[in-house]
Amino acid sequence: MVKKESFFLNDCSDLKTLMKVAVGEEKADLAVVNARCANVYTGELLDDCAVCIKGRRIAYVGRDPQTSIGSATEVIDVKGKTVIPGLIDGHTHLALLSSAGEVLRYAIKGGTTAIVTETMEAFPVAGYEGLIDFLKSFENQPIKILATAPAMISISRTAHGISEQTLQKLLDRDDIVGMGESYWQAVLQDSGSILPLFERTLRAGKRLEGHSAGASDKKLSAYVAGGVSSCHESINAAQVLERLRLGLHVMIREGAVRKDLKEAAKIKKCGIDLRRLVLVSDSLLPADLMKNGYMEGIVQKAIDYGFEPIHAVQMATLNVAEHFSLDHLIGGIAPGRYADLVVIPDIATIEAQIVISNGRVVAENGNLLITPRKHKFAQKSLNSIQLPREIKPADFIIPAPAGTQKARVRVINMLTDLVTSEVVLSWPVAEGQLVADSKRDIIKIAAIDRTHNPGNLFTGLIKGFGLKSGAIASSAAWDTSDIVVIGANDKDMAFAVNRIRSLQGGTVVCDQENILAELPLPVFGLISDLPLQAIDQQLKEVTRAAQNLGVPFPQPMLSLTILTGAAIPYLRICEEGYVNLKDGKAVPFFVE
Amino acid sequence: MVKKESFFLNDCSDLKTLMKVAVGEEKADLAVVNARCANVYTGELLDDCAVCIKGRRIAYVGRDPQTSIGSATEVIDVKGKTVIPGLIDGHTHLALLSSAGEVLRYAIKGGTTAIVTETMEAFPVAGYEGLIDFLKSFENQPIKILATAPAMISISRTAHGISEQTLQKLLDRDDIVGMGESYWQAVLQDSGSILPLFERTLRAGKRLEGHSAGASDKKLSAYVAGGVSSCHESINAAQVLERLRLGLHVMIREGAVRKDLKEAAKIKKCGIDLRRLVLVSDSLLPADLMKNGYMEGIVQKAIDYGFEPIHAVQMATLNVAEHFSLDHLIGGIAPGRYADLVVIPDIATIEAQIVISNGRVVAENGNLLITPRKHKFAQKSLNSIQLPREIKPADFIIPAPAGTQKARVRVINMLTDLVTSEVVLSWPVAEGQLVADSKRDIIKIAAIDRTHNPGNLFTGLIKGFGLKSGAIASSAAWDTSDIVVIGANDKDMAFAVNRIRSLQGGTVVCDQENILAELPLPVFGLISDLPLQAIDQQLKEVTRAAQNLGVPFPQPMLSLTILTGAAIPYLRICEEGYVNLKDGKAVPFFVE
Repeated sequence: MVKKESFFLNDCSDLKTLMKVAVGEEKADLAVVNARCANVYTGELLDDCAVCIKGRRIAYVGRDPQTSIGSATEVIDVKGKTVIPGLIDGHTHLALLSSAGEVLRYAIKGGTTAIVTETMEAFPVAGYEGLIDFLKSFENQPIKILATAPAMISISRTAHGISEQTLQKLLDRDDIVGMGESYWQAVLQDSGSILPLFERTLRAGKRLEGHSAGASDKKLSAYVAGGVSSCHESINAAQVLERLRLGLHVMIREGAVRKDLKEAAKIKKCGIDLRRLVLVSDSLLPADLMKNGYMEGIVQKAIDYGFEPIHAVQMATLNVAEHFSLDHLIGGIAPGRYADLVVIPDIATIEAQIVISNGRVVAENGNLLITPRKHKFAQKSLNSIQLPREIKPADFIIPAPAGTQKARVRVINMLTDLVTSEVVLSWPVAEGQLVADSKRDIIKIAAIDRTHNPGNLFTGLIKGFGLKSGAIASSAAWDTSDIVVIGANDKDMAFAVNRIRSLQGGTVVCDQENILAELPLPVFGLISDLPLQAIDQQLKEVTRAAQNLGVPFPQPMLSLTILTGAAIPYLRICEEGYVNLKDGKAVPFFVE
Repeated sequence: MVKKESFFLNDCSDLKTLMKVAVGEEKADLAVVNARCANVYTGELLDDCAVCIKGRRIAYVGRDPQTSIGSATEVIDVKGKTVIPGLIDGHTHLALLSSAGEVLRYAIKGGTTAIVTETMEAFPVAGYEGLIDFLKSFENQPIKILATAPAMISISRTAHGISEQTLQKLLDRDDIVGMGESYWQAVLQDSGSILPLFERTLRAGKRLEGHSAGASDKKLSAYVAGGVSSCHESINAAQVLERLRLGLHVMIREGAVRKDLKEAAKIKKCGIDLRRLVLVSDSLLPADLMKNGYMEGIVQKAIDYGFEPIHAVQMATLNVAEHFSLDHLIGGIAPGRYADLVVIPDIATIEAQIVISNGRVVAENGNLLITPRKHKFAQKSLNSIQLPREIKPADFIIPAPAGTQKARVRVINMLTDLVTSEVVLSWPVAEGQLVADSKRDIIKIAAIDRTHNPGNLFTGLIKGFGLKSGAIASSAAWDTSDIVVIGANDKDMAFAVNRIRSLQGGTVVCDQENILAELPLPVFGLISDLPLQAIDQQLKEVTRAAQNLGVPFPQPMLSLTILTGAAIPYLRICEEGYVNLKDGKAVPFFVE
């Protein structure tokens, strides 16, 4: 068994070895010579540089490498090409559809060599044990994957929160660099459970990742005063500027949930210090990853939108390493740092010709030379749909108050594909029930707990989701341990949920009890075990099937799964009922 | 008894209070309004800003403070004046002559609100217990004093080193932000005692302060690969640039030992990213401190030498806070940070009109409004000259090898006032002894251990120190627990040392057994308990007396005490004999 190497430091004998290589008393394993080196510390491009590498780290950077090069040293002459530090994604969600190993197959060849991921998805469905299994899937990979502990802001009381003891166990780990995003409204509304977690994280010298979508002035100040030091939710240059001024590291997002770079890039006109600006994906869809690559694509876009190329590179290297206080290890080409390097044609063209990670050449000209490890998840992680029995159509019945002909009810209202409000309607009662009316585009939505009190569910109504018939369901419901389902009739809703139950996770679109498309997600009910192409294919089929049933949104699965989320305004649903995110409080279905 | 407040975080209820003040649910204690705020994060000057303060910290920064201001809030209208963050000295030695309390009397009124000091002087003479007493002298002061644990690189084997256990106890403290400067030659020559200390410091997430005077290319790379992340020894722009490129935080020094800013400031012509450039004093002499102030004087000089004013301010605020990973607490004006603010006329004029530290107005128009605490040192700290008996002139006799008329001997050669080389001479033997010859300017030098093996001493010869008669001695010998003495005759040498013994520390100049000048240093034998003016007066008298006896150097005490130091090339002396710093090895007095 290979001893797990410490990310931070194995042993000081490693330091001694690096020092010896620098002065030529020992020889480098690998030397990259004749490089135009991007120096992210000074912002310079320096010609005729050499980088001498021993083991996983850099021993020497300079113009006179000969004494460090021996007969056994592999020498790569890059003939004047540009070498940049390995790219870092400072904020993503590796529980989005594809396994880490699959993401890496595409990430590495483009020059991404470090990733910081959230873990909030695994925890509510699989607990601490499942989270550890999730973290294990990041170990012994060809590049570094670090993680944040889950802040577990959730509208569901069963999914909400993490104990101080559990958090501390996570903070004690090398690979946990902070606590993940805690949505600002919940922090401001907190009655005492969140700030003790903040305290522990700060005491551990680690970061509190923020999520301040839409906050400004006093509320934003309050959030920052609480100890949060980043935000990846700015959607324009004004929001970027306000956050930078408050000392936040501002992560511009260009990924699956939103693409903010074009608007946010206008910040470049301000002529301000950009040291706290960072580029992140916040997760990528398989299609994006396959087509545009990973961080190399985002850095290239930043350059294309007008950032100085060296600034764009800093935004995905030094700036993010500094945010996490990891700049002595990653994010720059200097002695002692990990030997994570990317050879590109020139500083304005982020196309990886050679990728070096942990001192090894891992990709060349777009071809992987190594195979990311496919993690074998524990059986428990693969059995996350714990519904004790099949769901029946009758489980979705909404009984009307006795003797009423009409009932005033609260309905989730899709304002955009992600944002909701509420409408209160007077709804007819038929045979003592409230039923869906797909003609009016008001149909049923239910959230079903699948791990804590499996089968516990709530059914409400949603307007504007567009389904004319059939149902769509997913076990990848945000911030909860729910299956979320929307359907034009109770039968299809039950059918879709039961299909997810037999798949042990997934997203299913059905009509008249026929499966139209499905994306199995057996790991935690969140992650596929298939290659990225297959996932992409399945996801596209889900999208097409849902759109064929009438859903008007570009990503029906995202529009569905985000409805249990605690971050996006404002009327949300979980297995306990509706929650109004404006004040974080539960609101009843029936309105007096 | 006042509970000692944690520098990092007392309790998360503090965070909650700040958040409440930001949104106006509680009211600020203090508000600074109508300010032109220097935003060190973005490099902007922002008009019409307000800073709302609760307790020790900032709750709100912005343009709409009214909801946070109540009837009990003290409001300071600065009427458009500029407000910068409190200034930070990232590297100094608070064991240099004056006590912390005395330094603060001058530091605070100019706008310095945080200091990081070395502790290497107290440790070899007073051990862990004395070091803790030293650290106690920094507690409950009006501004923040942080410290680095001593790396204890010393040419004396008894003074050299610190145990891993002792280091760990120090690293576990909030007020210890790293391990202090470890001279690069010793680190490269290390056979195994230093790197385990590096490992512990890095594992603690704290900084390894560097000292890479004169190192370049391979040796500098080796030193950086060892884990060091700063250097304050650059004497010109080329050295600054080489170090910045290696990812070091480069601390430009302008203080007692050297004034490097004028030369180093030429780096501004390079147009590079200056985020890792820092201004430090590395200690100030009383006269400098009284005349030019503390960090405000150094920042002003940086502006006068051509740095953009906002860059100069960043160099003494954000940049240094980032180096120590303290930027969430100090170094900028943002929510959650300590309320350390300085009101100045404009960004190019660093003259403190109001100084706020930890949320309190501590100085106005150059007048202190608070009194720095005068620490009562433990009796043990005041009894550091442990010589069991008086030193006799005969203790300095250098016996010649039996039967020789002349002896080939190694002599310390003063090349400048600080740098030495060696000369080997054939020296006449008189009555079986080698005697001083002040006519040839070759006289005796001795180093006498005062705490470990008190009285253990070595006597050698020194050329070029200039003393025509008398002697000069000091207990403030660098990097050791020695008294160092140079004299034209043995009697005066003994007299000077014995005077230090009865003073329990100090610097003494005497001639024909008369004291010409003296500077008592009763705390650890290093620090005066007098006001700065008195110290300055006494130091000037010491300087004048030594110069009157023939010493040609501007700071005779510095030239004397540095001779036991392990940092400056190259022939040095301690109680065990000579050491050649080129290889760190002892070299004999008699040459074969």
